[in-house]
Amino acid sequence: MRLLTEDDIEALAIGAAILGTGGGGNPTIGKLHCLQELRRGARVPLIGLDELDDDAVVVSVGGIGAPAISVEKIEEGHEGQRAVQALEAFCGCRATALVAAEIGGGNSMAPIVTAAQLGIAVVDADGMGRAFPEMQMTTFSIYGHRSTPAALADERGNIVLFRDACTEEWFERLIRATVVSMGGTAVGAEAPMSGRYVRRAGVPGTVSQAIALGHIVLEANRSHADPVARICAHEGGVHLMDAKIVDMRRHLEGGFSVGSLQLEGIDGHAGTSADIVFQNEFLLFRRNGIVEVCVPDLVILLDVDTGHAITTDVLRYGQRVAIIALPCHGLLRTPEALAVVGPAAFGLDRVDYHPLAAGRGAPG
Amino acid sequence: MRLLTEDDIEALAIGAAILGTGGGGNPTIGKLHCLQELRRGARVPLIGLDELDDDAVVVSVGGIGAPAISVEKIEEGHEGQRAVQALEAFCGCRATALVAAEIGGGNSMAPIVTAAQLGIAVVDADGMGRAFPEMQMTTFSIYGHRSTPAALADERGNIVLFRDACTEEWFERLIRATVVSMGGTAVGAEAPMSGRYVRRAGVPGTVSQAIALGHIVLEANRSHADPVARICAHEGGVHLMDAKIVDMRRHLEGGFSVGSLQLEGIDGHAGTSADIVFQNEFLLFRRNGIVEVCVPDLVILLDVDTGHAITTDVLRYGQRVAIIALPCHGLLRTPEALAVVGPAAFGLDRVDYHPLAAGRGAPG
Repeated sequence: MRLLTEDDIEALAIGAAILGTGGGGNPTIGKLHCLQELRRGARVPLIGLDELDDDAVVVSVGGIGAPAISVEKIEEGHEGQRAVQALEAFCGCRATALVAAEIGGGNSMAPIVTAAQLGIAVVDADGMGRAFPEMQMTTFSIYGHRSTPAALADERGNIVLFRDACTEEWFERLIRATVVSMGGTAVGAEAPMSGRYVRRAGVPGTVSQAIALGHIVLEANRSHADPVARICAHEGGVHLMDAKIVDMRRHLEGGFSVGSLQLEGIDGHAGTSADIVFQNEFLLFRRNGIVEVCVPDLVILLDVDTGHAITTDVLRYGQRVAIIALPCHGLLRTPEALAVVGPAAFGLDRVDYHPLAAGRGAPG
Repeated sequence: MRLLTEDDIEALAIGAAILGTGGGGNPTIGKLHCLQELRRGARVPLIGLDELDDDAVVVSVGGIGAPAISVEKIEEGHEGQRAVQALEAFCGCRATALVAAEIGGGNSMAPIVTAAQLGIAVVDADGMGRAFPEMQMTTFSIYGHRSTPAALADERGNIVLFRDACTEEWFERLIRATVVSMGGTAVGAEAPMSGRYVRRAGVPGTVSQAIALGHIVLEANRSHADPVARICAHEGGVHLMDAKIVDMRRHLEGGFSVGSLQLEGIDGHAGTSADIVFQNEFLLFRRNGIVEVCVPDLVILLDVDTGHAITTDVLRYGQRVAIIALPCHGLLRTPEALAVVGPAAFGLDRVDYHPLAAGRGAPG
């Protein structure tokens, strides 16, 4: 256990944006919320999975909606607190720790902000090891936890409780419709989990991982080293291509930012074309029409000079990007996980998943 | 107090369809549900407002969605029971009686089916004295009751609780989005009311009124009398026109059946044109371009021969209809009511409301 510092938050914002693979919400706004809480004196313990009691009451928290909306419709700041408290009142329990539903993007910050407000701890883990667009795509859900009852709060004071959903996909459908009716973003808290379950189903150490990634980027920029190479070296990733965005299609559909990018190689990759498909997050990287990397492995766009991640809400024509791929955690590569977060789950029916390399925690 | 009979239900289906002004859900399906409950031995007391104890716990129940969908997506049959029980569990109370949110159409049947399943009574009143498309358009809501917490149940077992809505309009927006995500229809139960409040804000006697209307139609058909004239005489209404539907536009928008009808006069009304605008319910009758009747007064389409109401889900080209207008209850004509159910509330900005005639309970 250690207390999170302002330095941690600065690094976390950078690292979580990288793991966000384009989505997970804008990390800058979440960072400002976190820093505000720390500066008013809040102390937020970060506890490892191995420190979690069997009977700890752990609630996953995260923003839900389209990244492109989250940068314009700013949170009031206590949405997560209201959601967790509504869930506690409904379930007749008290959360002893919060965990990120997804470590990627601004959703790395959501449990920290809410834990600061409630005076409880944050678990060094999450339910994705990255970001995914839909609610059933957490390892918590994949390995048997039911997300309902869950609570959803918006900035106006509206609170909706999802008491029973006949499947996790129905939970996603119901909560998504409510988020859209709330204006496109809101904060959710899902059914409490035992510490024992989170130790088994959570992707371990991802808060620390994101903080470490952030420090790598900061240090590379300070020392004029190549941040892209250092990120790949640290994570066992692959530097796929440096490219310029030559076309982009992006629109809101069903509450998601969906679209595609056309890329043309620059520098050492001149003459190569590629494209990327996204649904809040980057789903697939195709070079000259051939799929090289797809979900659940991580396709990430970095600013080619600074190594900072580029999220789907700030993509624009002409950007010069480094495209890298990182192996996902082994918990996302099991048959039950691939049924939920593999390419077919995103409608990419004709794409087979070929693991990028042995990922962190992958079975060999 | 008296027990509802199968004859009552047969008549109620006819009368409620008339008061439904085209909407309120298909009454035939609701009637079959009710008859099934009565035939399995359920006894459902109908109690007058004057018999209601001050501290009675009254829950309003009704189907929510588009009439055009309700005839294809049939209820499983216990949606209302699940919604009321979820509300009871959440509020820690037991409903002693149910009341229709709207007497119009199939929603006259919803509280009877659920009361039969729960073994409690139905109040001889409702929150509209007709049907309206939106949740905030009940006299319960207009005169100060907050609809939240409310519960919504679908045929699959999904249950959503609307704990806090910042306004009644937000409640409508949130529950509507959920209904749409559930496939376009579901059954809702709104926050419990005291018997004292229902006596003040409920539109009185509307279950009996609808049953009486149904008997008028049945009797007129048996005796070869004119049902249209008898309905108007009984209700203080106006026979506006006999006409043929010569054009119809109807589509689903935001979970509602919306559209318009073009009509050409027949028989004594030949040479006259008219049009009707609807949002689930008929909102406005215009003859030769001049508005003659609009919400909250009732614009009703009857089969010109049988006097049976024609709901918006079964409108079709070439139908021969009698168009009548009935005065709404005085509780819908106050300034606070007209702000919620007057023409402007339906986007009919350039229409002024001129009361049709002194309605039942109207102030003179």
